[in-house]
Amino acid sequence: MLSENHFKPTMRKLKIDELNRISTEEFKNSSKTPVVVVLDNIRSLHNVGSIFRTSDALRLEAVYLCGITSAPPHKEIHKTALGAEDSVAWHHFKRTIDAIEKLKENQYFLIGVEQVEGSTDLRSFQVDSKKKYAIILGHEVRGIDQEVIDRCDLCLEIPQYGTKHSFNVSVSGGIVLWEIAKPWLND
Amino acid sequence: MLSENHFKPTMRKLKIDELNRISTEEFKNSSKTPVVVVLDNIRSLHNVGSIFRTSDALRLEAVYLCGITSAPPHKEIHKTALGAEDSVAWHHFKRTIDAIEKLKENQYFLIGVEQVEGSTDLRSFQVDSKKKYAIILGHEVRGIDQEVIDRCDLCLEIPQYGTKHSFNVSVSGGIVLWEIAKPWLND
Repeated sequence: MLSENHFKPTMRKLKIDELNRISTEEFKNSSKTPVVVVLDNIRSLHNVGSIFRTSDALRLEAVYLCGITSAPPHKEIHKTALGAEDSVAWHHFKRTIDAIEKLKENQYFLIGVEQVEGSTDLRSFQVDSKKKYAIILGHEVRGIDQEVIDRCDLCLEIPQYGTKHSFNVSVSGGIVLWEIAKPWLND
Repeated sequence: MLSENHFKPTMRKLKIDELNRISTEEFKNSSKTPVVVVLDNIRSLHNVGSIFRTSDALRLEAVYLCGITSAPPHKEIHKTALGAEDSVAWHHFKRTIDAIEKLKENQYFLIGVEQVEGSTDLRSFQVDSKKKYAIILGHEVRGIDQEVIDRCDLCLEIPQYGTKHSFNVSVSGGIVLWEIAKPWLND
């Protein structure tokens, strides 16, 4: 008789060198998921580092660090990014609006991750793989500035059923970027 | 002639009291998404706090804090959880194995979020809304202990295309919990 475990794989944990990750050089030369992440005044270096790691894993085009958002090289960003700040392209903009205008000129579809009147539920959003996207994430407490939202093509909202007003920004960024990047993640 | 903006909603940012969140009391009395998050020796209090917030937003059943994972009340957990540690039920277990055995006895389907031989790609996993799930997240550097993995029913892997070996654990937790909770998130 076969035991129930017969059909269960071994599930041996993979060693780091078995993960077959690409090098920073290969990353820079690879074709990217056409998504730019825009950080509108993100205060926490832990969040910035974490978003760099997400952007590396999903092979995103760039991270735009705006306003008070700190830029690499920075010890505290490195502690969470663990080197992802060297693979993913980044630019710093004094004002988020300048980043937004540049993206608009280059035909990016601008999406704010924010709870607004007329927002789109993430579950009903259809990604168009012919488009390029900019995903804007806002300040930990204030969210995205209204003048930035006004320039967005739409706002996506992750439905929430708890007591608190929001997810941590690196988590909401992770969820939205995962959903947006899906059409480009091919082995 | 109608301008392009004619079809764009106002997108006024919602005030906190417009989000219509439930109270801690209502949360405790509400029916939950049948998912328990198991933290296997999570070192960072920022990650623990962030996972509490995700669990609150997705109205999960409980967070099991195991081994070195710190438990509330804790100033540093509160800084990221922002009170979500008061709404979501939690228990501390000295050994992750004890949490796992308890969940197994109670017919939870045990899923490790880990890169292992024979892991299941998150994109191909079908959630069964008749099941109860336990999602296990591991230590920031070492991942989930092999002896815990050996007791899992399967391991889920988020496909990654970058240079680094993993997402931040509160981000990978957020992505997996979002996908698992979807069938229960109804307005």
